[in-house]
Amino acid sequence: MGKVCVEGVGKFYQHYPMVAAVVTARLGEKANAMAAAWHSSLSRKPPLYGVAISPKRFTHDLILEVGEFGVNFLPFDRAGIIAAVGGSTGREVDKFEAFKIAEEKPVLTSVPILQDAYAAYECKLVSHHTLGDHTWFVGEILMVHLLEEALTEEGVLNLERVTPALYLGADLYLSPSPESVLRLAREVYGRV
Amino acid sequence: MGKVCVEGVGKFYQHYPMVAAVVTARLGEKANAMAAAWHSSLSRKPPLYGVAISPKRFTHDLILEVGEFGVNFLPFDRAGIIAAVGGSTGREVDKFEAFKIAEEKPVLTSVPILQDAYAAYECKLVSHHTLGDHTWFVGEILMVHLLEEALTEEGVLNLERVTPALYLGADLYLSPSPESVLRLAREVYGRV
Repeated sequence: MGKVCVEGVGKFYQHYPMVAAVVTARLGEKANAMAAAWHSSLSRKPPLYGVAISPKRFTHDLILEVGEFGVNFLPFDRAGIIAAVGGSTGREVDKFEAFKIAEEKPVLTSVPILQDAYAAYECKLVSHHTLGDHTWFVGEILMVHLLEEALTEEGVLNLERVTPALYLGADLYLSPSPESVLRLAREVYGRV
Repeated sequence: MGKVCVEGVGKFYQHYPMVAAVVTARLGEKANAMAAAWHSSLSRKPPLYGVAISPKRFTHDLILEVGEFGVNFLPFDRAGIIAAVGGSTGREVDKFEAFKIAEEKPVLTSVPILQDAYAAYECKLVSHHTLGDHTWFVGEILMVHLLEEALTEEGVLNLERVTPALYLGADLYLSPSPESVLRLAREVYGRV
């Protein structure tokens, strides 16, 4: 089969899979967690991280009010938590209680840190931008929570010890294949 | 081992792997391609896509001048192209010629579309934002190039036919494991 060209897009999953993140926020008694597949690094110095959230979400206004958010990365065997927080709304239910989601103490903010997360970022909101039908929240990463064994000496995920949960779209989750890892040194490949 | 907390971050790969993208731009005779691991969907209607690019990159100013960029997704067996464009600069070399990168015609823009890409977006720049040490380029996806067999009937990547190239950091690439795919319906998991 050949290639097709499609103008505009509806649901678009061509750039998936994405690591499924759980974005959290807390303001006083109100705390919430939501699933997010639209997120990215933005800057190294300062370390900035972005997440796209629809204004319809309960977490959206919570982040605006408190000026902080957490980004949690759960292992594949905890993907059920991602689906649970993705399929419910914090307007109607306390997700932490309903789904028995265990928390750890944040260090520099008030954001919920998920105990099951192998890595989590505590972010201070530095700006937000209305981009189409979502708001792009930009946060400075103040603190990283990390399972000690999660990273190799090079600082990349140790896939023998941690299995990230990737989202493929349409409620499908998968894991990376540790056996497939290849090193393609850019200095070598980029040599002309 | 337990968890550690680290203030700020240097190189941070905790949220990887990411689908490795090749971002392209063309202005007259000048064309370039670069590797990008910091990118995300931003909006469904209109379909907006964002990429973070350092002002040091040749492609950065090219995009600002022409107001367009392409986002190309290459299969795992073409990850060498991603490493090649990631390890060279368009200031010194015509990467398309040097690495024999075959192109296809764009439809609504002038951006290079890579023949090896299983999917590619033609984007019109709608805004750009200085966020830390990178610029966040926001483009409207005007046209999607897609290998017909790349998507399932549900519109998600068909991993039996397409193997995306994921980037783990530190010049390491890997592929997802098609056997691991699980459906976790949010309606079921989110039920209280």
